[in-house]
Amino acid sequence: MAEALRGLKRTNMCGELNQEFVGKEVVLMGWVQKRRDLGGLIFADLRDRTGIVQVVFGEEINSEAFKKAEAIRSEYVIAVVGEVVLRESPNPNIPTGYIEVKGKELKILSESETPPIYIKENLDAAEAIRLKYRYLDLRRPDIQRNIMIRHKAAKVVRDFMDENGFLEIETPMLTKSTPEGARDYLVPSRNFPGKFYALPQSPQIFKQLLMVSGFDRYFQIVRCFRDEDLRANRQPEFTQIDIEMSFVDMDDVIELNERLIQRLFKEVLNVDVERPFKRITFKEAMEKYGSDKPDIRFGLELMDVSGAVKDSNFKVFKDTIANGGTVRGINAKGCAEFSRKEIDKLEELVKTYGAKGLAWIALKEGEIKSPIAKFLSEDELNAIKDAMSAEVGDLLLIVADKPKTVFASLGALRLELGRKLNLIGPDNKDYKFLWVTEFPLLEYDEEEGRYVAMHHPFTSPMDEDVDLLETQPDKVRAKAYDMVLNGEEIGGGSIRIHDTKLQERMFKVLGFTMERAYERFGFLMEAFKFGPPPHGGLAFGFDRLVMFLTGTDNIKDVIAFPKNQNAACPMTNAPSTVDEKQLDELGIEIIERE
Amino acid sequence: MAEALRGLKRTNMCGELNQEFVGKEVVLMGWVQKRRDLGGLIFADLRDRTGIVQVVFGEEINSEAFKKAEAIRSEYVIAVVGEVVLRESPNPNIPTGYIEVKGKELKILSESETPPIYIKENLDAAEAIRLKYRYLDLRRPDIQRNIMIRHKAAKVVRDFMDENGFLEIETPMLTKSTPEGARDYLVPSRNFPGKFYALPQSPQIFKQLLMVSGFDRYFQIVRCFRDEDLRANRQPEFTQIDIEMSFVDMDDVIELNERLIQRLFKEVLNVDVERPFKRITFKEAMEKYGSDKPDIRFGLELMDVSGAVKDSNFKVFKDTIANGGTVRGINAKGCAEFSRKEIDKLEELVKTYGAKGLAWIALKEGEIKSPIAKFLSEDELNAIKDAMSAEVGDLLLIVADKPKTVFASLGALRLELGRKLNLIGPDNKDYKFLWVTEFPLLEYDEEEGRYVAMHHPFTSPMDEDVDLLETQPDKVRAKAYDMVLNGEEIGGGSIRIHDTKLQERMFKVLGFTMERAYERFGFLMEAFKFGPPPHGGLAFGFDRLVMFLTGTDNIKDVIAFPKNQNAACPMTNAPSTVDEKQLDELGIEIIERE
Repeated sequence: MAEALRGLKRTNMCGELNQEFVGKEVVLMGWVQKRRDLGGLIFADLRDRTGIVQVVFGEEINSEAFKKAEAIRSEYVIAVVGEVVLRESPNPNIPTGYIEVKGKELKILSESETPPIYIKENLDAAEAIRLKYRYLDLRRPDIQRNIMIRHKAAKVVRDFMDENGFLEIETPMLTKSTPEGARDYLVPSRNFPGKFYALPQSPQIFKQLLMVSGFDRYFQIVRCFRDEDLRANRQPEFTQIDIEMSFVDMDDVIELNERLIQRLFKEVLNVDVERPFKRITFKEAMEKYGSDKPDIRFGLELMDVSGAVKDSNFKVFKDTIANGGTVRGINAKGCAEFSRKEIDKLEELVKTYGAKGLAWIALKEGEIKSPIAKFLSEDELNAIKDAMSAEVGDLLLIVADKPKTVFASLGALRLELGRKLNLIGPDNKDYKFLWVTEFPLLEYDEEEGRYVAMHHPFTSPMDEDVDLLETQPDKVRAKAYDMVLNGEEIGGGSIRIHDTKLQERMFKVLGFTMERAYERFGFLMEAFKFGPPPHGGLAFGFDRLVMFLTGTDNIKDVIAFPKNQNAACPMTNAPSTVDEKQLDELGIEIIERE
Repeated sequence: MAEALRGLKRTNMCGELNQEFVGKEVVLMGWVQKRRDLGGLIFADLRDRTGIVQVVFGEEINSEAFKKAEAIRSEYVIAVVGEVVLRESPNPNIPTGYIEVKGKELKILSESETPPIYIKENLDAAEAIRLKYRYLDLRRPDIQRNIMIRHKAAKVVRDFMDENGFLEIETPMLTKSTPEGARDYLVPSRNFPGKFYALPQSPQIFKQLLMVSGFDRYFQIVRCFRDEDLRANRQPEFTQIDIEMSFVDMDDVIELNERLIQRLFKEVLNVDVERPFKRITFKEAMEKYGSDKPDIRFGLELMDVSGAVKDSNFKVFKDTIANGGTVRGINAKGCAEFSRKEIDKLEELVKTYGAKGLAWIALKEGEIKSPIAKFLSEDELNAIKDAMSAEVGDLLLIVADKPKTVFASLGALRLELGRKLNLIGPDNKDYKFLWVTEFPLLEYDEEEGRYVAMHHPFTSPMDEDVDLLETQPDKVRAKAYDMVLNGEEIGGGSIRIHDTKLQERMFKVLGFTMERAYERFGFLMEAFKFGPPPHGGLAFGFDRLVMFLTGTDNIKDVIAFPKNQNAACPMTNAPSTVDEKQLDELGIEIIERE
């Protein structure tokens, strides 16, 4: 039944037709969105990636086309030759609503069974079925729009980087397994049975080597891989905008990347992003927002009441401070009337972050309600109110614990309050960028019993802190910076160590024997013997950026063929079994488990 | 010893300085190419990716900088503040040769040991050492230039495709193993122990699904993988410009890709490529050039002498023709004086392609020399001469065999003669593009005892040949086309089957049970039930294209971090051993072999 094109050429896209085309003959090709029969006429909404236009067939218009049109159904692919005319009853809701195409010739290019999912915007179908029939899901105009925005975003990035003297250089996908970081995807080698390549978690080492090579300014929009248990909005393969530059300080990297983001938001969304972005240190971010990726679209900042309660008779506060802990809180302005149930829910939340409880003080008109008020003197209560700028009508929410727990729980509480109080609208087009700087270089990993690099082992310590590396490793700040947008880290980077001696000290602090460090990173350290330039860079999570640009909160909506939560593809059935022979060639076998 | 930048900003690149900058103060940063001491002055050639400029330090210029300059050695990284002045003795061989920079301030940013390879153009070092120290090899100006051209080529392609309405859409790297084609690289799955992803040999199926999804015009510059034994100029991972478009015939694909290539050669090399390209059928290509990727920069076409010798008494010719073979030859114009030894070498060559021998006739002034002349009548000899447009001074080289053998051996002989007679200069800037069309859809695979797809199983047969699919499969021509440049296939593609029924017939001819076809490609055939548009596309080997654009004949010269012939990387030592724990998590183990 499928007819061939036989030289017929499309002249126009559906979505571009309007009153200006009236009287013109056009050739359109696309999918039938729906067919309606009305008063001896057949109406078909014809869809291509630009939009929908109405085509009408009738005995009077063209008898042959009309007869053929009786066969068409939703999702049939057709070619129509016809004349653009004004519609008798316009539909002002769609761009092409003032015109229609009188079908003089019709070819049915291919037929369609009834699709298992509807092809329409904001479809509410189960994810499993959407992924299985992804090629149909991708026909939905909203997903198509996302993919087009993704294309445009990549184009804007490449244009900008090219204009600024950056070379896009491809780095290997079949590379070497590295011990730091997440779990690698491995690829067995056939030439060297028992040995494996790893897919890159990022091109970190290669981009640094490119700086050693003198390429000066490198970027790449590049696929990266992490074999981790998938949380929401994580994919086993994801895309990074990877950037590195030589002979620069932190300010140079920051300036360039702000301009990149400014350009991106302007060209894709026509949004003006102001520069320079706000910068705050890691310390300040934790103290004010309880997060190293604060959402600064709203206030509700954390406040320190340790000073106010350090001599309190309330044992919880007093002991916490005596043991090196801290007492901090959030003033939920105007929330004194929260119900007990609402407050209990907030307490549950902070407990999931390790807090032992949530102390609260509701400053109602004429009375104070608080389970802890009885432990506090009038002076202490006033001191707390002062420290938290409290007024009648406010609800003070306080956590006392180790700093880490206080920050984590209050940071989460702050976000929850922001949502609960509608401080961030659902369609908030307010883009609040900021840089978080002066991250700790190292964090102590309880499980491994050693320090680990907070970013990666090539991050440079701040000049003023280098001397503390061996003596007070936890005090050393890094030349690292994260770009944060509305509470999400969208990019991060650092100035790198470019001194072999310092790099060796770093590995020592990380508990690597020099032998192991050389085994794993020897080529980078070796390269550093031959004149490495000062260099630094940054990487953006491209998928996440595109999520912002498209306004979706689901990473699967910005990737053409995403994997599900098990890192599987319901459409292709990957991963799948392979022939015994293939494994044998690779020198591996499957472990038989009971 | 390494000094920090501490806010010092580079103002210029080395290579851009010339007389116009005289009198200006500049800040340069780069590598010391070499240092010379002369008459109380220290001269340093400073190199960055743009070129080299001479810097001079002296007691009179700046005493402190001069003292520091005594420490600098080749490949040290330095920053220099200085004034651009005219040189006393200009060097007209380099662009910056008329000026030099008087060094007023010097920072040694990092030191270098003596590099194991020289940093200079056209280095003649062993490949193993160059790959081990790739980061130094990449400092060589010629390799840097190649990588810059690669960047530019990719940029031009993306600009062009974007202007023509193509969307760059990323397809998965972790995908499904497919049985047709080359050997897959496999990636064990942790979530499904015993199952594997495959790295894509090409995004073929995904790009077709994107057409089913209505994206209309797709492209991607994308990494592909083949685990094959590496011949020269093959890499296990390589890059493809992948293109697919809907609602098109072969002519549309051809037109677009010619314009792409035209733009690429114009913008990168300033070479005007004429359009439309010549097109010849597979049959004509074989008959004229003995190759499906003919180098048409020179003549020496194959000629059919079967007619002239079909009744010959020379048994070899006669029997060959009687058995369905063919007798063809090349007229090596003006080569009658080739020595016996030279002719023997040519015979050796054709024998490696399966020919049993090489018959030759040297038409010398006044005499004919030929080991076969005695078997031929005067008439036959004249008929051969006529068929080959032979004149005195020519050497006629003839092979009699099965057509396949004749074409393969004469095709190789033709190329060898082209080189031997200097018909292609070593720096030949003559770019002869052509399309080869009407390929056979199928070839019979003796080893597998079945037909296999010459391109891939989704290639559409030509409309006029569809009916022969089951009856005379070897007669069916495909809607396939290759773009050939100077004897190399640089791209190839086809119009695809977009009809499930026809696709099923195709798989049947390929000897797939429907069960196996569905198991492997079911999702594509399933997708085709829901309105696939007519579509087709093409893929270019990007590495190979860049080889043409850079004028190199070594693929490793256009890839930043290539693998060696064993698919290993001497720099990182990939592939490498991994921890037992990693394998255990994946449910695989290494086969212990004696």
